[in-house]
Amino acid sequence: MYSSQIRTDLALEAHESVQTSNKDVHSPIHGVEVQETYHKESNTQITRVFITTKNGAKAIGKPMGRYITIEAPDMAGPDEGYHREIAAELAHQLHYMVPALKKETSILVVGLGNRDVTADALGPYVIDNLCITRHILREYGKAAYNKKQVHSVSSLSPGVMAQNGMETAEIIKGVIEQTKPKLMLVVDALAARNIRRLSSTIQLTDTGILPGSGVGNHRNALTEESLGIPVIAIGVPTVVDAATIVRSVMELPGFPGDTFDTDKPEVQKTFHDLNNMYVTGKDIDETIKRLSYTISEALNMAFEL
Amino acid sequence: MYSSQIRTDLALEAHESVQTSNKDVHSPIHGVEVQETYHKESNTQITRVFITTKNGAKAIGKPMGRYITIEAPDMAGPDEGYHREIAAELAHQLHYMVPALKKETSILVVGLGNRDVTADALGPYVIDNLCITRHILREYGKAAYNKKQVHSVSSLSPGVMAQNGMETAEIIKGVIEQTKPKLMLVVDALAARNIRRLSSTIQLTDTGILPGSGVGNHRNALTEESLGIPVIAIGVPTVVDAATIVRSVMELPGFPGDTFDTDKPEVQKTFHDLNNMYVTGKDIDETIKRLSYTISEALNMAFEL
Amino acid sequence: MYSSQIRTDLALEAHESVQTSNKDVHSPIHGVEVQETYHKESNTQITRVFITTKNGAKAIGKPMGRYITIEAPDMAGPDEGYHREIAAELAHQLHYMVPALKKETSILVVGLGNRDVTADALGPYVIDNLCITRHILREYGKAAYNKKQVHSVSSLSPGVMAQNGMETAEIIKGVIEQTKPKLMLVVDALAARNIRRLSSTIQLTDTGILPGSGVGNHRNALTEESLGIPVIAIGVPTVVDAATIVRSVMELPGFPGDTFDTDKPEVQKTFHDLNNMYVTGKDIDETIKRLSYTISEALNMAFEL
Amino acid sequence: MYSSQIRTDLALEAHESVQTSNKDVHSPIHGVEVQETYHKESNTQITRVFITTKNGAKAIGKPMGRYITIEAPDMAGPDEGYHREIAAELAHQLHYMVPALKKETSILVVGLGNRDVTADALGPYVIDNLCITRHILREYGKAAYNKKQVHSVSSLSPGVMAQNGMETAEIIKGVIEQTKPKLMLVVDALAARNIRRLSSTIQLTDTGILPGSGVGNHRNALTEESLGIPVIAIGVPTVVDAATIVRSVMELPGFPGDTFDTDKPEVQKTFHDLNNMYVTGKDIDETIKRLSYTISEALNMAFEL
Repeated sequence: MYSSQIRTDLALEAHESVQTSNKDVHSPIHGVEVQETYHKESNTQITRVFITTKNGAKAIGKPMGRYITIEAPDMAGPDEGYHREIAAELAHQLHYMVPALKKETSILVVGLGNRDVTADALGPYVIDNLCITRHILREYGKAAYNKKQVHSVSSLSPGVMAQNGMETAEIIKGVIEQTKPKLMLVVDALAARNIRRLSSTIQLTDTGILPGSGVGNHRNALTEESLGIPVIAIGVPTVVDAATIVRSVMELPGFPGDTFDTDKPEVQKTFHDLNNMYVTGKDIDETIKRLSYTISEALNMAFEL
Repeated sequence: MYSSQIRTDLALEAHESVQTSNKDVHSPIHGVEVQETYHKESNTQITRVFITTKNGAKAIGKPMGRYITIEAPDMAGPDEGYHREIAAELAHQLHYMVPALKKETSILVVGLGNRDVTADALGPYVIDNLCITRHILREYGKAAYNKKQVHSVSSLSPGVMAQNGMETAEIIKGVIEQTKPKLMLVVDALAARNIRRLSSTIQLTDTGILPGSGVGNHRNALTEESLGIPVIAIGVPTVVDAATIVRSVMELPGFPGDTFDTDKPEVQKTFHDLNNMYVTGKDIDETIKRLSYTISEALNMAFEL
Repeated sequence: MYSSQIRTDLALEAHESVQTSNKDVHSPIHGVEVQETYHKESNTQITRVFITTKNGAKAIGKPMGRYITIEAPDMAGPDEGYHREIAAELAHQLHYMVPALKKETSILVVGLGNRDVTADALGPYVIDNLCITRHILREYGKAAYNKKQVHSVSSLSPGVMAQNGMETAEIIKGVIEQTKPKLMLVVDALAARNIRRLSSTIQLTDTGILPGSGVGNHRNALTEESLGIPVIAIGVPTVVDAATIVRSVMELPGFPGDTFDTDKPEVQKTFHDLNNMYVTGKDIDETIKRLSYTISEALNMAFEL
Repeated sequence: MYSSQIRTDLALEAHESVQTSNKDVHSPIHGVEVQETYHKESNTQITRVFITTKNGAKAIGKPMGRYITIEAPDMAGPDEGYHREIAAELAHQLHYMVPALKKETSILVVGLGNRDVTADALGPYVIDNLCITRHILREYGKAAYNKKQVHSVSSLSPGVMAQNGMETAEIIKGVIEQTKPKLMLVVDALAARNIRRLSSTIQLTDTGILPGSGVGNHRNALTEESLGIPVIAIGVPTVVDAATIVRSVMELPGFPGDTFDTDKPEVQKTFHDLNNMYVTGKDIDETIKRLSYTISEALNMAFEL
């Protein structure tokens, strides 16, 4: 059956979607707080969505927690360097969300995704450019850095289940038990609803990653509840589901939803063909490399003490 | 302005499109001959479209010449080996189109496209697995192969203009003048209209490659006229333009074309955002590697004497 | 100081070296048993070295245990396929060393090394081509394979400490605790002493991997003692230390060791410059890809029930 | 037969070698001028070797012409950026050797070597990061750059003969005839004699590239004589031939050359095994990427008007 649901990993878009479908446009949703600010230097729009009650979570379709979206239209394009201002903005928002980063701690950064699938390689690529310190600190101490405080930073690219036969959560749990970090950051490629958000939006959230609908107990969850340490997820949308594109067209003004019968076999077949298809930019290969560098530099900045 | 044109590189789809928009469905088009056969062993549907007159070319929107389409639904999926039956079918159709391959000759195989862009890398990847003989023949003669007849096979991956500042046609012309092959094959990734044709269709044509509308004189053309030797193009669709997907939906039965005003700003904006976006399969990275291997093996078979 | 020691990861070479330096050439060493057989079909020389006592271990400089070396001179060169006969020989020797493989069990295959360093990438590349079953078995059971017995196979490419800040042993311990395999295979690139053994020798051992001299307690050991399950190491030499090459020359007959003073500053400087240098074949990039495929196919064969 | 010749692509080393084997050390060689200067800011040693007569060429074993060697010990190691000072030094020396670069001209940059072989990939990698202008200038003119003078820069990575069946010189000649650049730069990985020069030396020469001994007519030469435009070669040694390493040891003081009979079968066998082997650094994969970036940035600087 055709489903009217539009997939998005962005709380910002989920919130927009609820707003739009309301008749009282822009009436507040109970249990959901939204703050918007524009930052001139980095040309970024910062939207903080706080889901504070179970009802708010149900309305938005995302778990309770804090979501910060950085919309940076310049990010998808090339730059002299690595979009330093945007990286600085991300570092700043990360410090806001995780004050613990201001004092020495130990951090595991996990890059989710499949390195061999372009649109899914963001996480592993970010890991490639991180400044890793844990092994140096264990071998030589802080003297090696000539500093009083140095975060212990380790990283992991666990790959995907089809490659290694294990749930990502199993690998991460095992590594956390052995190496005992106090904080985990997890970087992942996301799906958006709106094409204009591809490669130009970063979402930060303290809810971790909860595959599926966000309801119920998941053996695959990467959350504070399942892993025992705070889990901050950092994501950038790199694709839009092909079916989502088509559904967006159907929501355009003037589209006569009444007469277009989505139960007809031809329509169902078209949507079926769109499964396992995604929409992405023609320069996705280059963009992913650049994006990953912006994010790894942001993390390197955020980890400086 | 919104254009009702749907982009496809496949003559088969261009022909279908003309047929569908006709009221007399399946009435023959003058100057266009179509033959269809099903080959059981390779589970392939072979469609030969011969455009024999200028009027036929105008009707279809493709240059005069012969187009052979091999629809091989199994090709997109994995296989024990490299889809040997489909490769054999392609070799067979290539011999049909180019009888000159049955006697010793010299062949330049060109892999168009950008190796660093997944959906565009088919051509360069095919080149990577070809059996190249020209340098061996020049150094050691046919004795090296212990055969009476051996094709001289050379290859080139010219890259793309954004990388090297030169038209592909300039590089190829220079190489042909220096090395004087008698026949050129050019392999390229194509855009289709129908998602079901992605990675499961091969088009062979003796028209070469004529960028743009196929009308007028092109400095970038890769054709017998511009290069002085027969040019056979081999292509596989790897993407569908995102706008094409949406336009396909608008052609579904029940879609109220009359009331949906594509001149409205919101609709125009949606189509504008879809520029530079394409739709492709979630396993495109793996699929391109496999496809390229099927085609290079087909060429290696076709070049055996 | 110049050290007369020649580095090799091969028990076979360590044994040869002890033999050669003995005046009674080929006198047996107590606690070391050696069997040699030639297998015609695969054109391989199989040498089994069993170190059965602590004295034997001290004499050879390798831990007690069983070492099987497959010398396959054809392996370094190209082949129609993947050197099927050699892969079958490796599968056969693996079954001999690990009879547990003949009955259904669960196996973790670890690919050590750095995917981005050609000569060190063997382990990760082997993992890429393994048939992984664990996630399928957990989701669908053996019905998915239509067989009565299916090994549960999972895999891991843990990367290297400089990349992730963690000891390889930490990651592996964590993963074993979470996923509880009954057996571990670990694949690694080795250093040989003799250039002719590069890419043409496979060593199998049930001692696991013990970095360094093989004496004492190691937090980094990958052994049954440290991990709690049997650990079988599979290695192929891909490099020779540059200093080892030079030392080999010094052992040639006619080399007047007496007059060549290795304490001289110029000699010391030369050896110092050779640190961090290795010797390898000019076709190492291609060879590693081919080798990894032979080994992954051998494992896939060995895991068939 | 064992050959006493030591292979080096560096004129500097060829000159050193001649000097050393002379009894009158440092006596000038007729037809060879040598200037040495140390540049503090970039911590580089610049050696200019001018071979001005045929006798000089014969003495050194290199063609007549100018050779500039930049020894930059810092270059092999990592840096915050891309070794900007060294890049600036290379740009400066390039302007000294090619004054034509100071006025608007058209330049073809060729990256020799095999992208898939780590130690040989320097040339193709340099091409990847060049600022290419030719296609922009042809399409939009200098207005696109808002400048009065802009070099027309194009590039080519022709691959290697084993891959495409054509001599590199054939491809380059064809491209030059079609696109008519006024100057060609060619970037290549070199072999050095001294390990300490690996990845820390850049050689610039106006002799182009003359494969083999530098004597006689070569169809494969990339020189002004063969191509009709000035050819500047830029090379960095990335490997030392394994046999060269061993021969270096034999030249150490105290090495008893008299008694060490290189005609003995064991010695000959050892040298034979060293064929097709090279010595390189353990971090060669990473180093090549960094080096290529330093050189491409140097070229981008040198091409600014």
